[in-house]
Amino acid sequence: MPHSRRIDAAVMGALNAAQGGAAPKKLADALSYACLPGGARIRPTILLAVAAACGDDRPALSDAAAAALELIHCASLVHDDLPCFDDADTRRGKPSVHRAYSEPLAVLAGDSLIIMAFEVLGRAAAEDEARAAQLVLSLARRTGMPFGICAGQGWESEAEIDLAAYHRSKTGALFIAATEMGAIAAGHEAEPWRDLGALIGEAFQVADDLRDAVLDADTLGKPVGQDDLHGRPNAVAAYGVDGAVARLRDILAGAIASIPSCPGEAALAEMVQMQAKAIMPKIPARYRV
Amino acid sequence: MPHSRRIDAAVMGALNAAQGGAAPKKLADALSYACLPGGARIRPTILLAVAAACGDDRPALSDAAAAALELIHCASLVHDDLPCFDDADTRRGKPSVHRAYSEPLAVLAGDSLIIMAFEVLGRAAAEDEARAAQLVLSLARRTGMPFGICAGQGWESEAEIDLAAYHRSKTGALFIAATEMGAIAAGHEAEPWRDLGALIGEAFQVADDLRDAVLDADTLGKPVGQDDLHGRPNAVAAYGVDGAVARLRDILAGAIASIPSCPGEAALAEMVQMQAKAIMPKIPARYRV
Repeated sequence: MPHSRRIDAAVMGALNAAQGGAAPKKLADALSYACLPGGARIRPTILLAVAAACGDDRPALSDAAAAALELIHCASLVHDDLPCFDDADTRRGKPSVHRAYSEPLAVLAGDSLIIMAFEVLGRAAAEDEARAAQLVLSLARRTGMPFGICAGQGWESEAEIDLAAYHRSKTGALFIAATEMGAIAAGHEAEPWRDLGALIGEAFQVADDLRDAVLDADTLGKPVGQDDLHGRPNAVAAYGVDGAVARLRDILAGAIASIPSCPGEAALAEMVQMQAKAIMPKIPARYRV
Repeated sequence: MPHSRRIDAAVMGALNAAQGGAAPKKLADALSYACLPGGARIRPTILLAVAAACGDDRPALSDAAAAALELIHCASLVHDDLPCFDDADTRRGKPSVHRAYSEPLAVLAGDSLIIMAFEVLGRAAAEDEARAAQLVLSLARRTGMPFGICAGQGWESEAEIDLAAYHRSKTGALFIAATEMGAIAAGHEAEPWRDLGALIGEAFQVADDLRDAVLDADTLGKPVGQDDLHGRPNAVAAYGVDGAVARLRDILAGAIASIPSCPGEAALAEMVQMQAKAIMPKIPARYRV
């Protein structure tokens, strides 16, 4: 089964479990609204690609890990869009969750998706208790404090930002989770896979900065110029458009070079190449020098 | 070691882990602010009492379970106090987290505490992987959708409320988690302990309704009359003050009767009796008939 279908099936399975019994309907609907239709599902795709490269001997565990990671990502988008953060009216070309439902339901939807992610891993312990426990730990560390995406968002409330820690946690953390969890699900050590995740995360951050700076809102499907508006540090402000494009190419080359030796090394390198092409934004002519 | 010191040590341990490395300071501070000094720590106290009644053969696992449960409870208070929910200015006699820090930091603190709870359980898997996985599942089910405290809060956004489901999830769920997780941590089946948790939860709900209706804000340490203000269903509106007091006594008697046969049954019954006395609010003379 292709990765995208495995991810969809695993996310749908988790969402269906949350609808069971006498669930409050609006909140149940908001959970599905936040996750479907999916975005690029890039983090779980990387996770399954790493699991495949490591042999993927427990596919049900890899699927659970992929779903858990995607649920956390969707939760983070719902909370990031809240009025007290980005105050975003749209996401993936439709109203953001707090706009479509309400602010209370958006807070609760984010909370519920975070919890659901860990519930999915708890259920998957039936496959392998030791690996499931490691997956819980990896996901929690890359999501919470002091190194996860919560920490990344938390940096935006500091008067002085530790830029390296900010980027590593805000965007990098869930990509590190993707490579770590893919390896763990397939019974491999997580540590050698950390650099690959960190570098892919860095690449996505630079690509995102480029998109935010040069694309229009219709193409992007969400408000643009948010980094400048909120005074957030970004690669385009630091290096210019051309410099940021060059930096993005360098990081991706480093990512491919960092892939640990494993049965599916060549296929994984090819997949990262493909993702690299996919994330490179088409720079409008007016920005070319 | 008395239960209260075990709980404090376990919660402190979890909070200290979140301060490590280059953590954003305000968010790290907000986490401690939300959990310290603690309230009555009633849920983890029940958890440890049930674990003790079941033999408590892995105390480190029980401590982790107690800390995880308390962290989730504190997270729920931080999010419940947000402007879009109760808009509470104070909590436990000091400014609520969003008042003391900011709304973004309160959202992130709640998120981080939820994640920290599961991280604590992930680390405790070193004690016993199978029990840790069951603890993750129990905590997630009693916290998220469709049966946990998120579902309970979600009911408040519905035009028609399923009252039984509302109370069971909003207040009951974490008490069910307390008895389930205490049993699981000590290697016992969770299911026979569910009724005890549900009945204690019901008792606390009625006691809380009584306090909200009859005490003043200084005594309570938070705004009063919130149920009436937000049009929330409550036992005093349904049965009157005297009726609610009688109902509270009945529920507590049922709770003690529901305790499963176990090595520490008598001591546990005594502890529930003591808690029952502690939660019964002193009804001001003007409410007595």
